[in-house]
This record gives sequence, C-alpha cells and structure tokens, in this order.
Amino acid sequence: MDQKIPVAVLGATGAVGQRFVSLLADHPWFEIASVTGSERSQGQPYGEAVKWLLPGEIPTPVREMVIERTDALPSDIQLVFSALPSRVALEAEPELASRGYLVCSNASAHRMEPDIPLLIPEINADHLALIDHQRAQRGWPGFIVTSPNCASTAIVFPLKALDDAFGLSRVHAVTMQAVSGAGYPGVSSIEITDNIIPFIPGEEPKLEQESRKMLGEASTGTIEPGDFQVSAQVNRVPVLDGHLVALSIGLRKKADLEDITRALDTFKPPDSIAGLPSAPEHALLLRHEEDRPQPRLDREAENGMAVSVGRVQPCSVLDYKMISLVHNTLRGAAGGAVLNAELLVKQGFVDKYQESETRSLMP
Amino acid sequence: MDQKIPVAVLGATGAVGQRFVSLLADHPWFEIASVTGSERSQGQPYGEAVKWLLPGEIPTPVREMVIERTDALPSDIQLVFSALPSRVALEAEPELASRGYLVCSNASAHRMEPDIPLLIPEINADHLALIDHQRAQRGWPGFIVTSPNCASTAIVFPLKALDDAFGLSRVHAVTMQAVSGAGYPGVSSIEITDNIIPFIPGEEPKLEQESRKMLGEASTGTIEPGDFQVSAQVNRVPVLDGHLVALSIGLRKKADLEDITRALDTFKPPDSIAGLPSAPEHALLLRHEEDRPQPRLDREAENGMAVSVGRVQPCSVLDYKMISLVHNTLRGAAGGAVLNAELLVKQGFVDKYQESETRSLMP
Amino acid sequence: MDQKIPVAVLGATGAVGQRFVSLLADHPWFEIASVTGSERSQGQPYGEAVKWLLPGEIPTPVREMVIERTDALPSDIQLVFSALPSRVALEAEPELASRGYLVCSNASAHRMEPDIPLLIPEINADHLALIDHQRAQRGWPGFIVTSPNCASTAIVFPLKALDDAFGLSRVHAVTMQAVSGAGYPGVSSIEITDNIIPFIPGEEPKLEQESRKMLGEASTGTIEPGDFQVSAQVNRVPVLDGHLVALSIGLRKKADLEDITRALDTFKPPDSIAGLPSAPEHALLLRHEEDRPQPRLDREAENGMAVSVGRVQPCSVLDYKMISLVHNTLRGAAGGAVLNAELLVKQGFVDKYQESETRSLMP
Amino acid sequence: MDQKIPVAVLGATGAVGQRFVSLLADHPWFEIASVTGSERSQGQPYGEAVKWLLPGEIPTPVREMVIERTDALPSDIQLVFSALPSRVALEAEPELASRGYLVCSNASAHRMEPDIPLLIPEINADHLALIDHQRAQRGWPGFIVTSPNCASTAIVFPLKALDDAFGLSRVHAVTMQAVSGAGYPGVSSIEITDNIIPFIPGEEPKLEQESRKMLGEASTGTIEPGDFQVSAQVNRVPVLDGHLVALSIGLRKKADLEDITRALDTFKPPDSIAGLPSAPEHALLLRHEEDRPQPRLDREAENGMAVSVGRVQPCSVLDYKMISLVHNTLRGAAGGAVLNAELLVKQGFVDKYQESETRSLMP
Repeated sequence: MDQKIPVAVLGATGAVGQRFVSLLADHPWFEIASVTGSERSQGQPYGEAVKWLLPGEIPTPVREMVIERTDALPSDIQLVFSALPSRVALEAEPELASRGYLVCSNASAHRMEPDIPLLIPEINADHLALIDHQRAQRGWPGFIVTSPNCASTAIVFPLKALDDAFGLSRVHAVTMQAVSGAGYPGVSSIEITDNIIPFIPGEEPKLEQESRKMLGEASTGTIEPGDFQVSAQVNRVPVLDGHLVALSIGLRKKADLEDITRALDTFKPPDSIAGLPSAPEHALLLRHEEDRPQPRLDREAENGMAVSVGRVQPCSVLDYKMISLVHNTLRGAAGGAVLNAELLVKQGFVDKYQESETRSLMP
Repeated sequence: MDQKIPVAVLGATGAVGQRFVSLLADHPWFEIASVTGSERSQGQPYGEAVKWLLPGEIPTPVREMVIERTDALPSDIQLVFSALPSRVALEAEPELASRGYLVCSNASAHRMEPDIPLLIPEINADHLALIDHQRAQRGWPGFIVTSPNCASTAIVFPLKALDDAFGLSRVHAVTMQAVSGAGYPGVSSIEITDNIIPFIPGEEPKLEQESRKMLGEASTGTIEPGDFQVSAQVNRVPVLDGHLVALSIGLRKKADLEDITRALDTFKPPDSIAGLPSAPEHALLLRHEEDRPQPRLDREAENGMAVSVGRVQPCSVLDYKMISLVHNTLRGAAGGAVLNAELLVKQGFVDKYQESETRSLMP
Repeated sequence: MDQKIPVAVLGATGAVGQRFVSLLADHPWFEIASVTGSERSQGQPYGEAVKWLLPGEIPTPVREMVIERTDALPSDIQLVFSALPSRVALEAEPELASRGYLVCSNASAHRMEPDIPLLIPEINADHLALIDHQRAQRGWPGFIVTSPNCASTAIVFPLKALDDAFGLSRVHAVTMQAVSGAGYPGVSSIEITDNIIPFIPGEEPKLEQESRKMLGEASTGTIEPGDFQVSAQVNRVPVLDGHLVALSIGLRKKADLEDITRALDTFKPPDSIAGLPSAPEHALLLRHEEDRPQPRLDREAENGMAVSVGRVQPCSVLDYKMISLVHNTLRGAAGGAVLNAELLVKQGFVDKYQESETRSLMP
Repeated sequence: MDQKIPVAVLGATGAVGQRFVSLLADHPWFEIASVTGSERSQGQPYGEAVKWLLPGEIPTPVREMVIERTDALPSDIQLVFSALPSRVALEAEPELASRGYLVCSNASAHRMEPDIPLLIPEINADHLALIDHQRAQRGWPGFIVTSPNCASTAIVFPLKALDDAFGLSRVHAVTMQAVSGAGYPGVSSIEITDNIIPFIPGEEPKLEQESRKMLGEASTGTIEPGDFQVSAQVNRVPVLDGHLVALSIGLRKKADLEDITRALDTFKPPDSIAGLPSAPEHALLLRHEEDRPQPRLDREAENGMAVSVGRVQPCSVLDYKMISLVHNTLRGAAGGAVLNAELLVKQGFVDKYQESETRSLMP
C-alpha cells in the first residue's frame, strides 16, 4: 500500500458516497480500503450493490470490494469519510469517534455542535482548535469534523471575503438548488419536470446558522457565531448539478463597488492550506460577464472545487447583491470533505502521517 | 357581428400574440377582426404564417385571416391589443393613438411615461384618470394603456395588499422566470438545458420601477411613485410557463404573521372591476402548504389569472418573506391586457359600448 | 346519491389513482364512494395522505374521505377502479371479483390471461364476450376487465385501422415514454435530467403481446391473438406526460400512401360505444403537419382521450412508418379504464344500471 | 510555431466551430492560426464575437484572434476545418479546394458527391483513394473530405461490424437527437421543454444515404453504395448532447446472439489509423448493462470519441435490435473531422508533414 493512507467511505452507495469513491479513486494521498453500506447492500460487491449515477465507470479496485457494516471497520483504518444519512450519522459517527476513528463527515447531524468544527479549509482552518476540546470533553480518542451544507458553501466564500474587509450586518439568500443535492432517488422527475419546488425540508435554518458558525470566532472549546443575520429562501430547480444563490448583503463599513470587487477578487486562503491536492488555485472565482456564473458552464471550474461569484452590483435595499455558484456534490459535499481530510493530514492529526511525510507524497 | 366589439391583435404571430389570439377566440365581448404582423408574414393567412406554439389548434376564424400591416388597420376597429416588440411599439403605438385607436399594450416601450397608465384593474384602476391628461397633452383622439412586465405582476399583488395594510419600506425580489417570457424563439435550448441564466437584459430595472409606479398616487396628469425601494435579481430557469418570485419585504408598521396572512388572504379588488369576464374570482390566492405555489401546479389557477402567494414567514433581514407566482403569458401578458380592455369597455372608453350595453353582454 | 353509480378507486393515492380521482370528480355517471390505499395511508383523510401531483386542487368531496382497506369495501359499491400496483393486484383483484365486484383494472397483473378482456372500447368491444366464460370458469359473481399498457394504447389505434383495411404482418415500435408512466416517485430526476434511459423493466414484452391480444379474435372463452409480429424498443425520456411511438409497419395487402392515410383518417369506432361520456369525438386523430404530433402540444387533444398519429410515410424496410402519441395517464391509464367502465354500464353489466337508465343520465 | 501544423477553423463562432476551437486548443499536431466567421463578426476578436457555449473558458490564444473572412485565409495555412453552414459551404468549400486548401468539412453540402470521401477513419479509410480522382477531375490542387451527419456516425459503427461479419440487408433506425445537434440558437426552449419534436428538416434522407455510402466500395473515382436499405425516423429530444439511436437490423447470414455480440465486441479499426492522437482506444464500446448506453452517462466515453452500443437482443421483425449512442458534437462533428485530418496528415496529404515527421510529433 506504499505510503497512501487507507480510508473508508461510509454510506458509499448513495449519491454523495459515489462522489467520494470517484474522487478518492486516484487520490495522491488516500486509498479506499473499505466501503460500507446499509443492510440491504452489505456483503455484496460494490459494483453490484450500487446504482452508479456518474458518467464513466465504477473505479476498478472499488468495484470488487465487498460492502461492509459501518460498525465493523478494519482496524488499520483511521480516517473515514461519512456520507451516511443524517439519522444514521447521529449515532454512528460519535460511536466511531469514541473508538478512535477520525470522521470527516458530510452529514448534517453534528454540524452545529459547539465543539465540532464545521470546516472549510480556506475559510476557518483555525476552527480545528476545537478538536482538542472535543476529544477532552467527550473522552474520544478520535473526533468528528463536519462539512457544511452544499448551499452554505456557496454563500460563505463571498461572505468571508466581505466580512474580513467590511464586516457583515445582514445577508439575504435565495437559492436555486440542483436535484443532485437531494441524493438518490431524491426528487421525483414527476415533481420537478417543468417546475420549481420552493421548499427543501430543514434547509433554510441550515443556511441561516451554518455561515454564522463558519465565520465565527473559535474560543475555548466553542465558536462564537458571526454577528450578522442571515435569511434564506430555498428552491429546488430542474438542474442536475450546481447550486446558484442570489445574495443581497448589508455591510458594517461603507464600501464602493470597486472595493467590493477587489475584496472578492483578491480573496486568498490562509497559507496553511498550501499544497493540499484538492485545493483549487482560485477558491473564489470572480466572473465579470453580465450573465455568469451559470450552473452548467461554471460548476466544473477548478475540478468543481471553486466557488464562482458574479453579477456584483449595488443593492437599493441592502448594500450589494451578487450571485454565487457551487458544485453541490463536489466542493459542496464529497470534495469539501476530502479537502478537510487533506488539511487534517497536513496538520498532523493522522497518526504516522505527519506533515513531513505528506510532503513527500506531494508532487 | 352582433354586439361583439371588433378588435385587432398587433404582432399576432409572436408568442404573446398567440396568447391574445387564443384568449380572444371565444371572448364574450370581443371578436378578432384583424391580425397584423411583420413584413415577413404580411399577406399570408395567419394559419400559414404562424409557428403555433400552444396546445390545441389555431382558432378557426383567425386561421384563415390574412395578416395585415400594423399601420393599415380597418377603420371600424377602435380597440387594439399590442403584442408588438418594444422597438416597434415605440413608434407604432403613439401613431395609432394619434389616429384614434385605443391601444392596450403589452410592450414595455411606454410603460414608464408619466401620463400613460401602467394598469392592473385589481391594483390601480384609478390610474385610468391619466387618460384624459394623456389625450389633452398629446392631442390624441385615442390613447395608450400599458400592462406591466410579467414578473412585476407577480410582485405587485402581495405588495398592494401589504402596502394598503402596513405601508412598504423595502422590497427585495429574486425571480425565477420561465422561458416563454422571452418569446419565440427566445431562449435557446442549448443555453437553458440543465442550467440557469442569472440575467435578462433590461429586466431588473423594470421590476424596480414598475411596482412603484403601479402603487403610486395618480395626481394631476402624472403618478407619484410609491415611497419604497425595490431591489431585483432576475434568473431564467428551465420552466416553460410561470414566473416564481422570492420576496423579502420591509414594512412601515409593525405586524405579526397573522396580520400579514390576513391582509394577503382578504385582498379584495375594487368593486369597479366586478363583472369583467376575465377577472378571476380570487386575484390573489394565498396557499398554506409548505411547498406551494409551484409553477407547474399553480400557474393555471383561475384560468391563469390568479397570482398565487405562499410560504409566508418572518424574515430576519427585512420583515416578512414569501413567494409569489404568476402565469407570465396569461395574467402576466395577454390575459392582463385583455382584462385592461374589459375595464376600458366597462368604464365607457370604447365608443358606443357604454356600461349599460356591456352589461347586456354579460351572462 | 341520485342516479349516479357509486364506485371505488383502489390505490387512490398513487399517480394513476390521482388521475382516477380527478376524472371521476365530475363524472356524469359515476361518483366516488370509497378510496383505498396501502397500510401507510389507511385511516387518514385522502387530502392528508396523498402527495397530490396534478395541477389544481384535490376534488372537494374526496379530500375529506378516509382511506379504506382495499379488502374492506362498502357493500353498496359494485364497480371498482383498480390503480393497484401489479404485485398487489395479482391477488387483490381476483379476490374482489370472487366477492362480486366488477373490477376495471389498470394493473398489468391479469392482462394476458385468456379469459380476461384487455379492453379498449373503440378497438375490441366484442371481447366483452369473454366475461361470461370468465365468470363461469372461475365461479366468480364479479369479473375483471383490464386496460392495456399506456404505450400499447398508442400503438393499437393505428394498427387496428390498418389491420382492418390491409392486414398486418410485422410491426416495429420504438417508444419515447414520459416519466409519469412510471408512477410516483418513479423515475429519479437525477437519472433522467438531460438524459434518456433506454430500458423500462418488463415493458417490451408487454408491447409485443398486448396489441396482438387486442387485435385478436374472441372465440369460445379465449382470444386468438392477431397473426403478426411486434418488436419493441422502449425508452424513458424527460417529458412529463405523453408517450410517443415511432412505428414501422408491414402489411399483408399492397396499399399506396393515399390508401393508408384514408384508412387512418376514416377510422371509426363501433356504434356500440356511441354516447359514452368519456369517448372522444375522434379517437384517432390524423395530423398532417410535418412535425406533429408532439407530446406537449397534442397530448391533451380531446381531453387527453384521442390518439394522435402523424408523419405517415413509406418505409424502405417495412411498408409504412408513422408516429403515434397517447396521453399515458389519461387515455393510456385512468381515462381508458373509465371509458371501459362506461361501456360496461351501457352494456348492462352493472346491476340496475341498464342501458335505458344510463341513457337518462346522458346529456 | 515549432512543428505544429497551422490550421484554420471556418465558421468558428457557431456551436460546431466552438467545439473545433476547444479540441484544437491543445492538439499535439495542430495549431489554430486563423478563425473565420460571418460578416457580422469579422474584424472582432474571437472572444468578443463568440457567444461561448461550452463549460470552461475560451482557449487563450484564440480569444484574442481577430475573426477573418473565409475567402481571405493566410497563405501559410493548408489545412482548414469547416464548420460552415451548408448553404455557405456549398460554394466556399470548392472555392477553397480550387485554391489549394485541404478542407475537412463537417457541412453536409458535399457529402454525397461521388468523388468526395465521406470519411470515418475506423470505417472507410480506404475511401481516401477518391482524392486523386477528385483532384484530377476537378483540376483542384486542394480537396474536400467530409464527415458524416452526427446520427449517421452512431449508426455506421455497429453496421460496419455486422456488415463485415454477416452482411446487411435492412436497417431501421429511430433517432433521439440532442438539441446541440441543431447548432446555436437552434431549437427554441419553448418548443422542446417537456416535449419531443418528431422531425428534423432534411435529416431522414441523410441517415438513409450516408451509411450506405460509408459502407460502400471505393472503385475508380466513385463509391458503390452498400447493398442494403435504411429507413430512418428522427426525433429531437430535450437532451443537451448525445444522439441515441434505436436500431433494428436484418442480416444476410444467419447469426446467433453470441455471434452478434462477438462481432460488435471485437470490432477493430484498420491498423492504418494507429497512433492518431484523437483515435479512441475502443471506437465501438459494447455495454452489457440492461439500461445502457445513456446519453448523459456515456456520451463522454473515450473523450467523446467512442460510439457506445448496448441492449443487443433478437428482433422478431428483422434479426437483431440494439441501441447506439454518439456524442454528436465530438465524435459526430468536430472530433470526427479532427480525426479525419489526423489521418490525412499520417497518410502524407499535408505538405511537408509526411508520416515520418508526424511520428516525431507522437508521444
């Protein structure tokens, strides 16, 4: 197995699980050593149990792997990616952390817990400071790190750039979310053909809370949420991949349009994330055309890991409005969690894979 | 021709023109006596010149009508419906008004002129007072009355109900607009399949101005626009018919959720519009499901003449948020203009068809 | 309940069940007296248990009806419409027939049984002769009459017209089937957005057998299938309603294009179906445009009860090719079964509702 | 310019032209030296004149190129790719050939001329023998080589494999063609949303003739078309990219299903095409799942250059049926023409770039 780090994908047959499998198939640092699934699929080869939804073939080594129980992971694995449904993640993830696993979770179950990081490396890598508290408080040898909701990801990048420069007071967000965000089978074609569904259960509160947590201050063992209000209205639209969000933003400092554009255009992640294999060159991609970003044209930018922002203009109600786009199953789900795991490796959270070693893995 | 009023449809082969033809085919008061079109189609039978886009057949009498020049209307027609492109309407509509025609226009060319009503009978029937000034000032025997932009129509109904009850201060509107709003051929399928286009040329300023004019005060010869700000972000979505708008609204008076719901639910048009054949029973239809209105399910409500509002909830940024839906080519275009014409007839603007006579036309 | 015939809808919450509810809501002869559903929904009011998928509201009287068990129908009902899943219908429908119910079924479970009519009134009303044998053989006081597969319905109309005139030898059919044909939730939007699925489980054999049975000869207690071959290739396409079928047909007698066109254009159902409320004026609608029928434009023709045929042209491989369109959930499912029930009433199969009485129900 | 061959793209702003630009941007042998366009765009930088429709950015060097007139190509270019509309290609391509240019055309204008190759390297590389006759007969220093219609490409691969093994007698083809095949703006979203259009002007005769020419025998200066009949029925479907074709095929020799499968699975292009940079590893990709190929999942196979075939099964009307899929703007248009040009280079048709030199270009 050379130097690659063995990992498991939990809930590997679902839509997000498939993205994990696809992204990890040729990953320079990680190697899938186990895939788990529900009772229905346990014991079957992955290639038979999965309804593969992505273009291209099922990656060869995984195709033959037998699907395991989530509570019976091989002991040589430390790092696990969770694409579990939230109701399953609720108990399974703490159980795994208590047994020493490092859980990079895409599930919503534990995102808002005060001692669990809601992590995007470019946004709040310093929130990893919570991990010590989490372990100490819960007595866990392992820990849980979560990725935000896919639409929250689209929102938090421009918010971070503007918060740093001008301070945020109020944010109004209207989302147009792709059907892949609902997983498989998810949204019935009967419901969404030639239609929009202006509701996604539980989604609006997530958007209203998660960006405040991500932009909050990590203090002793908890996060002080960002001091701004977010109001969200969510919509499901007949688009396969790519969540588009219309944002209107109120700022604490006065800024003209040029200031805003510059703050967005010069957004720079912390140096600590340099060298992570899944990190995009431009995490926030500012577009200047009058009609971009568009989901189909821009969702794959930087391998689906960039958030594209455009149509920045003054707003007569709050201060500035703009639109933001994220590939919801790449940056907004599996890709984001893989990037989180890369940061954990780089910062030495994974045993025996200290920074010095991972450097040797880097090209 | 009995007692029916002969009318012309200008620009009858386009997408909105076809809706006029379809709506007027069995109208109880009006009868199509002339259809006009561009040079390309003049002289041909309507059934051959038109690329018919609506379900069902081309109405029989119109199918055989020869398409006329817009500037050579028969003299026995007084009332004309304009589905002309705006750049054509710019000159053609004043020319027609100066020759005595009463123009009910769906074009945007003259909507914002101070002495030209931007009319929705349920909202601002009193703005017809502008007509006398318009005629006097311009020396026209005829006049122009315009219908608002299709998305403005979705917005103005809930705004009217809330403005009357609580006063408006600020409105943020994010639209998801159907492809039929762009006419034919309009939006290319290559652009909109599996995609959203976050831009429609010239649309955002229309939304930001039109509802303020419609909710304004008609004073001597002009309109004092409503004293509130509107900020709009528009999107084209892969839906055939039906514009959905996410609204966030700031009010001048405090109101709890129940007050808001009641104001919307009890919205009542002025008595002056009673008996108009195209008037819906409920012009503003408040829905209480958590996931409605939806374009495909609700656009045809009340023959496509109702505006459906739902998901009313408090907003942490402004005061209340909700969504609103309009059938963009019925209430939001041809249907709205037909209703305007019905009001003109009822109020005696059409020669020899005073209210008493039209009453006899009513069932 | 005046003179209306009380009926039950079995499996009333599913996609076809909803169409039954919608069609029967204002039916001149029938009145819904009971709705049944799966264990999950039993005991709940219909309006709460159903995920209503059709435009418009749930019909008022049904909205409040409590969903019953399929095996506990009220005794005053004789006629039942089955929208049961086939695996449920397999046992439930015979059980009901054995207890005296007259079952008009849309399920596929019993379609190919030799003594059960696969009925389309315009095509093979004479197959009702099987009912006596069915009852005698099985000792049932009731009976089962089935409706064909939705795509079979599109095929059998032009085949019937051509078989009567020229005899059929071979038929090749390629279908493009709407998502509503798969019921709810049916086809996942993730699978069908920007895509075609060239497979529907179990569908091709149905198409290859059903039209031969429908065009067969009813002899003593069974049907001698039509003496021609059918080969089918089926596809699921991203269209909401309306199955389109490309047909290539080999004939036994020579015929020129004009003969073919005339045979299709003059197709006339038997007189025995005159006066049935759901019967379309033109059951087979021949279109002459070069690009019709199209699902969205033509599926609603004659209230969704006409089969539209077009693009008739010589075929260099078999004899003639053409396309055919059916509204799959109206004529191809619920509408077809309601028409079957109307024929049963007219022919006196429903107690106390002999032809003379139903005549008095007709307008 | 090192060793790369300078080429021009004619009609470079259209949908196929953009694919040429995209494919040639990083081509190992070719380098875009000129782009041409209609009068409307001449003189503008490509990046301003084009409405870019593909994901990702306009390739950098081309973005700044000024669009030229098609009849004023720089003299140092010999090889040109034509994405001209057919009516323009009709005169422009012969004119260019008469002036010494080697025209690889995607236009339909000259496909069926007896001395002009209709070329797919894997199918009929030997048809290049026509070029000598073409030049001699017409007195041209240059020549024209054409690529087939996109749907013809999907058909001819399985036909070639089966023709070689068993001989073809009859072929019935029903296509489901993506909207990108109609170019830009092409199909209006109003027409194709929730719909199928069962007609494409001029398409059916192309499908019925082109595969016969491609599978024909090149004899002295002309092609004897393949001795089999093709009947086609075409449909436009709401899919972005990827033409799917349902085929039913009659053979001259008896073959069982295993024979057929083996013939398809072992299809091997002639050795002469080895080493062409755009040649896929498997030109004909046989799939064994019951529901594949599907446009969205399989169109990108082998960089969009493989034709995927599946659902092979006996046919009760002809002998075997199957489905075939091609990426219509890659293999079926620009990609096919680029591959043709590569073959021309390899076979020494391009001055100074004899096989030996191109070998040095190969990796």
